[in-house]
Order: sequence, then structure tokens, then C-alpha cells
Amino acid sequence: MLFETLKSIKPLSKSSMDKAKDRLDRLAKPIGSLGELETLAIQLAGIQRTSSPTITSKRLIVMAGDHGIVEEGVASTTDEVTRIQAVNIANGVTGVGPLAKQANASIDVYNIGIRLPLDHPNVIDKNINKGTNNFTHLPAMTRQDCIKAIEVGIQAAKDAIKDGADAIAIGEMGIGNTTPSTALTSYYTKESPQSITWVGANLPMSKLGNKINVIERALALHAKSINDPIDAMASLGGYDLAGMTGVIIGASASNVPVVLDGYISTVSAIVAYELNPLCRDYMIASHASEEKGARHASEYLGISPYLHLKMRLGEGSGAVMMFNIIDGACRMLNEMITFDEAGFNPL
Amino acid sequence: MLFETLKSIKPLSKSSMDKAKDRLDRLAKPIGSLGELETLAIQLAGIQRTSSPTITSKRLIVMAGDHGIVEEGVASTTDEVTRIQAVNIANGVTGVGPLAKQANASIDVYNIGIRLPLDHPNVIDKNINKGTNNFTHLPAMTRQDCIKAIEVGIQAAKDAIKDGADAIAIGEMGIGNTTPSTALTSYYTKESPQSITWVGANLPMSKLGNKINVIERALALHAKSINDPIDAMASLGGYDLAGMTGVIIGASASNVPVVLDGYISTVSAIVAYELNPLCRDYMIASHASEEKGARHASEYLGISPYLHLKMRLGEGSGAVMMFNIIDGACRMLNEMITFDEAGFNPL
Repeated sequence: MLFETLKSIKPLSKSSMDKAKDRLDRLAKPIGSLGELETLAIQLAGIQRTSSPTITSKRLIVMAGDHGIVEEGVASTTDEVTRIQAVNIANGVTGVGPLAKQANASIDVYNIGIRLPLDHPNVIDKNINKGTNNFTHLPAMTRQDCIKAIEVGIQAAKDAIKDGADAIAIGEMGIGNTTPSTALTSYYTKESPQSITWVGANLPMSKLGNKINVIERALALHAKSINDPIDAMASLGGYDLAGMTGVIIGASASNVPVVLDGYISTVSAIVAYELNPLCRDYMIASHASEEKGARHASEYLGISPYLHLKMRLGEGSGAVMMFNIIDGACRMLNEMITFDEAGFNPL
Repeated sequence: MLFETLKSIKPLSKSSMDKAKDRLDRLAKPIGSLGELETLAIQLAGIQRTSSPTITSKRLIVMAGDHGIVEEGVASTTDEVTRIQAVNIANGVTGVGPLAKQANASIDVYNIGIRLPLDHPNVIDKNINKGTNNFTHLPAMTRQDCIKAIEVGIQAAKDAIKDGADAIAIGEMGIGNTTPSTALTSYYTKESPQSITWVGANLPMSKLGNKINVIERALALHAKSINDPIDAMASLGGYDLAGMTGVIIGASASNVPVVLDGYISTVSAIVAYELNPLCRDYMIASHASEEKGARHASEYLGISPYLHLKMRLGEGSGAVMMFNIIDGACRMLNEMITFDEAGFNPL
């Protein structure tokens, strides 16, 4: 299913993008003066294959999973918090909740790899495993489980879209997940763990050296045997990351834009991009995370976040704020008057 | 009235800010992980003098006025466009219209200094003069007219607030207004016109040298006789800029946050700040304009825009998008659960 879905992703519609660009240049404003809003409007036209893209139903998909690597002391809290916060996110009362409500977005929370037992009506149970392995000893996941996790994400996107969503954002909850994210960023960008590892959810600075060392050991163990993006995710990633990779692939294959959040989601986007570069055309960046590796991951992907809010929470908290902006970009394209309608034409 | 209003501006409420900060640090997230959203929530608490700030009614105030300096060839269109677009903005069909609607904000458009006759039910007529003077020959406005314009802005803020607005954004429409804005930015920041003058609404690059020369001549004529911020605005500014300065002062005096837009509004904010530095605490930056001087104006004020969208339209188009974010910041502060409520406490 993964490989069929990857093959089904199409390039954006050039003709819809050209039509949108043509209209943008006839709207009553200095040409190009709405900057990235114009770029986003054109991208959305290409994704939705219409010169009048609209965003009517916004959905955040949150992937929650645990990381065996926390036993190496890389996280500031115990991984019990993953289970607790997965439920709280689903109930709309964590950081992303009020922001999603402000943006009129609903939230689907998936248990894709939480370690502790969880049975809650608001959390969708697609648990593949009780957390990943400690990847300083073993690959984080088997190749088979990694593919399963990506496929859970693909299905999550398809289910949301079937339910009416026409814009999807991704988020995660997974105590310890800046560690696999930094390992993957280092693997792809060739930046050293020393230069890009940072404190995640307030890891004490005194423990940063250990976190760097853990990532160095993981790369030393796995990097040489990685042959493809699935290997990379399986060896160094996590269920939450792989699930988000799948959501990106599923949204792309369904001609639906997918809004990235911060660092972790951008790393999951790198793997989607490596599996099929066309995925990048369906991605929309949101905020610039304060985590050190985030800038490198964005640069590797060639995307540039729009919101500079010094956030580093995750959960999709930056992504949902971007929904308002892409909604605005669509409305601008559709609802502004042209020079002719405005009664002047400086062209 | 101007000087009484200036005197009535109070510092933010330290106790409300402390209470908001205390709550933020007990919310179920890594301390500080919502970055600028937390800073904004604290600022709004201080402005509204409550530990639970809310944004319920958003208003954009647009000041429209003409600039005698356009006769020097500094603009890419004729100033007839100011009158036309003032009406179109009021009708909600220019660039800012769909974005304001997306943010659930209403728009008040003021004719504060449009050159051509304008009688339209949707534009509030407070015309002081038929455009400014060409400030390479004369001060743009008399000191008296400049004060009048600031007072129109103060009253505009007070009327909007009386009508229920609890968050105000400022915008402008004035063909040619990057020229006075750059003159004022150069005057305050001491950056040379050569280094900060840019193309505004797509002025051909071939005319940039003339625009720089016009600003240099204006500064040579007026800079030495400027004794206070009113002189600066009167000599080098415009009715639209002075009106926005007034809105900032009026909002500040009424304990209401005021969202800046791009370059022009940031320059009007410098003059408000120079008249009473407390005004700055009521200002909220929005987007980073592509116009060269914008960064210098923001740095002079010590503010840092959050939205990086490469926009340069004006009209308040960047400011209204910020409404969503400050609304989100308030909701986050009020609606997130604490660690105790969440069922874990890593502190």
C-alpha cells in the first residue's frame, strides 16, 4: 500500500497555478505585493487543481508514540507523559487545543506507539508497538513495523479527507522525540550531532553532552547500513515520526495540502520527500522552531517557515496557526477585485 | 486633547502580568515552550489589566491621505488611486478585505487627507486638507494640522473602543507614503536615504535615485528645525501617518492593544513612541515588510515582527492576520490545563 500510494502522487497542476498567477497579477494591488500569500495561493491552486482553491475543513492529525531511547537519559520527563498528554490533546486542553479551536480545526489523535496501555474513546488506537527500541542497541523499529507506521499515517490522512478535511496539519506527542529527530537530521544534512543537538523540552544543559553522545553512538551503529529512507526511519526514527511521514504521503496522494509543524514534523517530512520528492509540493511550512536542528532540517527540505514565534512545544501548535494564513491566501485570491473592477489600472 | 491623552497613558499592570506569567508556568507544557505566544499573553494581561485577557471584537482602522511629494515622481501610480482604494477598502474588496474577514475583524476607513473630493457612506470623512504639501519646498503639514490629524486618530480609536473593539489594528492608504516614511526613518535612525530607500509599490528601479534625492533634499531642508516629534511628523510625514500615530495613542490611553502593520505604520509608531514611550507597551508587531527601511524602523522601536510573508501592500493586511495569533495567545493562557489538572508535574 505504501509503495502504491507513493507512486500515485502527481505533480501539482501547472495550468491551475498559471491561472491563479494570472488572476493574482490582475488583482488591485502592486504586482507581487502580497509576497508569500501569493506563493501560497498559487501552491494551493496547484494542489487542489483549481484556480479558486478554498479551505473549508481543517484537520490536525497528531501521532503519539514512545521512544526506547529515553532510557539513556535524553528526556526531561518520564514517558508516562506521552500517554497522559495524548488523552489531553484529544480532549483539546493542551497547548494546541485552544489554538486549534481558534483556527476552527479539529484534532485526530492516534496512539501509534505509546508504551503504556491506553484505552480512551477520544484517542484512535492504531498501536503498533509499546514504544521503539533503544536505538543505541537496536534499530528503533523493524523495517516492517516502520512501513506499518507509515501506512497508519497514510490511512489517517485518507480517513480525515473522506470525512471532509481539505487541509491537514501534522503534530506529535512523544517524550524523547527530539533525539531521533536530531539523529535523522544529522544523517541527512551531515551536520554533526555536536552542532545541532538542543534541549528539547527543557533538558538541563548538564545533560546535553550525554544526549549528543547518544546520537553519535546511534549514528555510528546504524548509518552505514542505511540503504533507503525506510531504513533511516526504522533505524533512527520513531512511530510518531513515521506516522507523520505517512500523513504527508497520504495527503499528497489525495491532492490535499499538509501543514508541517516544527522540528519533529519537518524531519518526518524529509523522509516523505526522500521517498517521493513530489511530496514537497504538497507541504506548507508553518513556524520556525527554537530547537537548533530545525533550521537545518528546513533548509535541507528547501522550505522556509513563516511564523517566527520562538515556539518549541510540538503537538501541531504552530501548524494550526498557519491554517488561518492559508485560508486567508485562498480568500485573497478569490475575493479581491481586479484592477478593472476597482476602477484603475496602472499596468 | 492630544497632550491630555498622552499624559493619561499608564504603564502596563505589573500585577496582572505577574499573575499571567505564574499561570503560564503552571500550564501543562515545558516552561517557556510557547515562546512569543507567552510573551504576547503576558503583554495582553498587562494591557487589559487582568490575568485572563480576551479578544472579542477586532477592528482595523485605516487612515487614507495624499502626499504632495508625489509631484516629484516618487510614486508608480497617480494619487487618484488613494481615493479609489479608500472606497474599495471600506467595501472590503482590496487585499486587506478578505484577510480581515478571515480574522473576523471589521474595518473603519478614514478620509483624513485625500486630495480629491470624496463623499461615500462607507468612508468616514475627517478630511483635514487636500493632501500634504510637497515637503521638498514646505513642511508637509502645519504643526496645527498635524496635531489635528493625530487627534482624528485618537478619536477614531476611542470611537472604535466605545463601539466594543478590544483589539485595534492600524493600516493606511496613501499613494507615495513610503517617501515620507523613509524620510522619517532616516531622521530618527540616522540611516542614510541611500541605504534605506526602496521601491514601495513597484516604483521602477530607474526612478529610485530620484526618490533618494527627494528624501535627501527634504531632510536637508527640515531636519535642523525639527524640535520635537510633532515637528518631525509635520515636516516629513503625512495625514495618514499622523492619523495612525493618533490611533496608537488613543488605544494606549484606553488600555487596548494596537497591532502595527508594516513599514508606514511602524514609522507612525515611532512618532507615538517619541511622544510617550509608554505607547510602545501597547503595540504589537505583525509582519516584516519587504520595504528596506522597515527593519530599521522596527529595530529603532525595539520590536520584532512575527510574520515573515514578504508582504509590502499596506492597508493593514499584515496586521489583521496577527489578530488570530493574539486571540490564540489569550485562549492558550485561559483554556490550557495546568500540570495539576493534566495529571503530571515534572517541576
